[in-house]
Amino acid sequence: MHYNGHASAYPNNVNLSRNSDLFMKYTILIQCADAKGLIHAITGVIQRNQANIISNHEFVEHNGNLFFMRTEIEGEVNKEKIKTEFATVLPSDSSIFIAEKRKKRIVILVTKEHHCLGELLVRNQFDELNASVLAVIGNHEDLANFTGQFSVPFHTISHDDKSRDDHEKELMNAITPYAPDYIILAKYMRILSPGFIARFPNRIINIHHSFLPAFVGGNPYRQAYERGVKIIGATAHFVNDNLDEGPIIVQQVIPTDHSHSVQEMSQMGRDVEKITLAKALKVVFDDRIFVNRNKTIIFD
Amino acid sequence: MHYNGHASAYPNNVNLSRNSDLFMKYTILIQCADAKGLIHAITGVIQRNQANIISNHEFVEHNGNLFFMRTEIEGEVNKEKIKTEFATVLPSDSSIFIAEKRKKRIVILVTKEHHCLGELLVRNQFDELNASVLAVIGNHEDLANFTGQFSVPFHTISHDDKSRDDHEKELMNAITPYAPDYIILAKYMRILSPGFIARFPNRIINIHHSFLPAFVGGNPYRQAYERGVKIIGATAHFVNDNLDEGPIIVQQVIPTDHSHSVQEMSQMGRDVEKITLAKALKVVFDDRIFVNRNKTIIFD
Amino acid sequence: MHYNGHASAYPNNVNLSRNSDLFMKYTILIQCADAKGLIHAITGVIQRNQANIISNHEFVEHNGNLFFMRTEIEGEVNKEKIKTEFATVLPSDSSIFIAEKRKKRIVILVTKEHHCLGELLVRNQFDELNASVLAVIGNHEDLANFTGQFSVPFHTISHDDKSRDDHEKELMNAITPYAPDYIILAKYMRILSPGFIARFPNRIINIHHSFLPAFVGGNPYRQAYERGVKIIGATAHFVNDNLDEGPIIVQQVIPTDHSHSVQEMSQMGRDVEKITLAKALKVVFDDRIFVNRNKTIIFD
Amino acid sequence: MHYNGHASAYPNNVNLSRNSDLFMKYTILIQCADAKGLIHAITGVIQRNQANIISNHEFVEHNGNLFFMRTEIEGEVNKEKIKTEFATVLPSDSSIFIAEKRKKRIVILVTKEHHCLGELLVRNQFDELNASVLAVIGNHEDLANFTGQFSVPFHTISHDDKSRDDHEKELMNAITPYAPDYIILAKYMRILSPGFIARFPNRIINIHHSFLPAFVGGNPYRQAYERGVKIIGATAHFVNDNLDEGPIIVQQVIPTDHSHSVQEMSQMGRDVEKITLAKALKVVFDDRIFVNRNKTIIFD
Repeated sequence: MHYNGHASAYPNNVNLSRNSDLFMKYTILIQCADAKGLIHAITGVIQRNQANIISNHEFVEHNGNLFFMRTEIEGEVNKEKIKTEFATVLPSDSSIFIAEKRKKRIVILVTKEHHCLGELLVRNQFDELNASVLAVIGNHEDLANFTGQFSVPFHTISHDDKSRDDHEKELMNAITPYAPDYIILAKYMRILSPGFIARFPNRIINIHHSFLPAFVGGNPYRQAYERGVKIIGATAHFVNDNLDEGPIIVQQVIPTDHSHSVQEMSQMGRDVEKITLAKALKVVFDDRIFVNRNKTIIFD
Repeated sequence: MHYNGHASAYPNNVNLSRNSDLFMKYTILIQCADAKGLIHAITGVIQRNQANIISNHEFVEHNGNLFFMRTEIEGEVNKEKIKTEFATVLPSDSSIFIAEKRKKRIVILVTKEHHCLGELLVRNQFDELNASVLAVIGNHEDLANFTGQFSVPFHTISHDDKSRDDHEKELMNAITPYAPDYIILAKYMRILSPGFIARFPNRIINIHHSFLPAFVGGNPYRQAYERGVKIIGATAHFVNDNLDEGPIIVQQVIPTDHSHSVQEMSQMGRDVEKITLAKALKVVFDDRIFVNRNKTIIFD
Repeated sequence: MHYNGHASAYPNNVNLSRNSDLFMKYTILIQCADAKGLIHAITGVIQRNQANIISNHEFVEHNGNLFFMRTEIEGEVNKEKIKTEFATVLPSDSSIFIAEKRKKRIVILVTKEHHCLGELLVRNQFDELNASVLAVIGNHEDLANFTGQFSVPFHTISHDDKSRDDHEKELMNAITPYAPDYIILAKYMRILSPGFIARFPNRIINIHHSFLPAFVGGNPYRQAYERGVKIIGATAHFVNDNLDEGPIIVQQVIPTDHSHSVQEMSQMGRDVEKITLAKALKVVFDDRIFVNRNKTIIFD
Repeated sequence: MHYNGHASAYPNNVNLSRNSDLFMKYTILIQCADAKGLIHAITGVIQRNQANIISNHEFVEHNGNLFFMRTEIEGEVNKEKIKTEFATVLPSDSSIFIAEKRKKRIVILVTKEHHCLGELLVRNQFDELNASVLAVIGNHEDLANFTGQFSVPFHTISHDDKSRDDHEKELMNAITPYAPDYIILAKYMRILSPGFIARFPNRIINIHHSFLPAFVGGNPYRQAYERGVKIIGATAHFVNDNLDEGPIIVQQVIPTDHSHSVQEMSQMGRDVEKITLAKALKVVFDDRIFVNRNKTIIFD
């Protein structure tokens, strides 16, 4: 059970530029076993702390008897105090996340394809991402100049002649100083080890193509072409153990047909991937998402 | 300000077959000026009445400083008692709707086109509509036999040689005994008078084609064809003063191109109309919709 | 290599009610190895036969060096004569299909679900299907009365206490007298044997749900719910050896999210299935489709 | 009657870098009154010139009795010779366009919004546009630095203190040396005069938001918000006399609902605008489009 968007847990965590815990706007995410009176109890805490509810969503997953609630509040509250008060009125196994509304800190990993990176860099430059792109890291240097055009640092960390372990250590060394909230795999074509992923639970986001039916093995666009699929899709998801099978955030599709070549289908796939990724990041960076086992609950 | 799905206000209201006010499941819709502590106060009433919240949605329209809340509860509550208690904790101008979950009673008005009617009759027969189709009324008799195939009463009320006023009186006489919650205009090609509409505020639902750009005047599919539009749409909406301009419930589109004839575009329009109407009715019949001025707030 | 929509090959083929080979409108489908001058040669034959081309589409599959052409002509042509003339100007391995434009004859197979059947029966009744529904056959009798409402014959052919072989023989005996051009599996929940399928190459059409990712095993909607998929899809396809893997005709999707129960997702799946199937049948019944290996080429 | 993508008609036309008329791949667009034997006659000319047809599409607009044909050929043909031969076999009022396949030359006009410009500059940099962005011209300088990041020339041509006539003369002086095939209005917020537009018939492409229903007057997103529309759309079109009413190239929509603020709806509108514009340019730059009166015929 885990909430996304929490303050990062790095030893040398950078100071996020705030001197006080008295912020105006907070997002609260609560997940616990369902019970009578939860909303009343939670909103009672908020009211006693003189805060105003701006928006509120709850969802009860009846199968698992689980309660999910996302609340945006406004007021001069003490974050730790209100969190403690929530704990007293909630079941003992509850997860409580409360954070000031702020832009997320992200690092982007890439290989050679530019389409998702370009989408994020343009949005970042015009402050449409609700995040700050701190750095881009590539296992090839192909996108170094392009990233530089946007005045964003680029690190080339080649995997050539390195064990996976050594490569990931270098990666981690490059990432750590940025203390990112999230790592975005914007067509990063390397498999990350379970150990690496475990350092960022529900904080690594990947985008990949999706077809009906699914195609196993290399060159999926070639396979999709041979099979005559009529739809090309993309799935943005959290990365957990298995590269392409974490909790799904956003899925989108576009129509295709026999007249499109493998190359055209690939271009269409790139177009839907970048839009799908951008849409997923909006949901995540705005703290609108819960992850429960392998499933997301999204309030948007 | 009005809530949909309320018990109808007919003088000879038929008994809706329930002997008691103690039902298990209720839907509550509350609309009022926004204020601190509303959710806490409302959920407090629910808790004191021993009811359990199954689902809950709120929305604050910041422009108008309006609060909307939809709650499904479960429990042996007294509807009038809980409504009175809500009133004591809410602002004085609040609208409070509380109703047991039940299938809505509907009457369908048609002219000659079958596509929307067919969709509704099939869903009705297999109990997928969350409603009961009590009767179909046509100003032509073209669809009488088709309706009969589904064992639903059909009334032909021709407008020939009648003033609008007389025709609508006949219509009203046919409708009244059914005490419908909603009247569905399933391609009913007559304009209803403001006086008629005022009898069913936010309780008449219409479906019509929609184009980008909009086309004024007769034969819109011909105009759309001549103009080479690439999208055909449909809008399901409540009917208020102006036939095609009430609060929008659902809008959907499908792609078209130059290769489609006017006839094919009309067929595509029919397909999207029937699906759009069915989707709108699901939202309305499940009491998921508020109407505020000319705009809907939908919790789905 | 095969063309759809050809006259059926039953020994006791029913007479399709035409006394002469001189019809006004024909559809021509030609598939062959690509070569220079094919269109010129083909249109030369048409011109020498005094026919007028109403519409024309070609596609060259460059990978396989294959040429596909669909032409609608108008004129008093002799079908056999023009086919022979085509053969003289085309490569020796060419497939040439030429048929008068006419409504297709279909038999529908069902089990218990009504949604696809209802869609087809309503369209059939109002002549929107470009086909005639000759009969519905169910392995259960659940849909017998519903089918009867549309005055279409229904045969119950239970599989209880029968070997697959015996059951399919009964099926075939029921189907054969109707001499259908196509067999539609409108949620027919039995696997057909390769032997049965081989009797109707590219003439059996199936509809099934589709997800990203695909789910293997029982209760796919339950699996999709647990996995939190954001899209529900449907695929209409020809049935060849493997039930769910023949050449794809149409694929469509609709969005879903965590708030939908398994039951609601199933209903949404039914809605997209029936529309997808209807759209596929339009393409097939209008002879707009080629099948090449496991892929369709569709001119629409 | 006009074909897009033709060589520009500037007096000082720049040499398009080819020394000979013997190119390998050509696109042919023919529009004329429909008649028997057209395809046969046209393909006869192609065959006699030893060229190979790569792809071919025709469409007959039956209402207007018009014939449209787009053909891609490969071969060592003489462009003027083959054009002359086409003229001898076609009706006298035919329009014949034949051009080597090459990247189009474009100039982009902007005001302050970056989203469409960013999309085009990134695609241009990675050669995904089938065009070369020669320059960007703004009536404000807001996007000068952003354009510079992509090493594309930016001209600021302010309209302040200038008559429309003077401003457009300056614009024309800046545009002319680039000899563009097309001018793209990527959120250029000035109305162009009929005189200016007449210099580039069907060669100016605009993108604008589209709603169901349409909203007249200022701040359409505010109006759409107040009205509770469920769909936000974008239309890419040629600019003729009237800014927003030329022949439509592509239309796309995305869903919205009451929960989106005016600002969020504007962002969603920007997202759909940039994708719609990019898709339209692909069609135009690949010479896949005819314009007949106020309607497009697109072969894609």
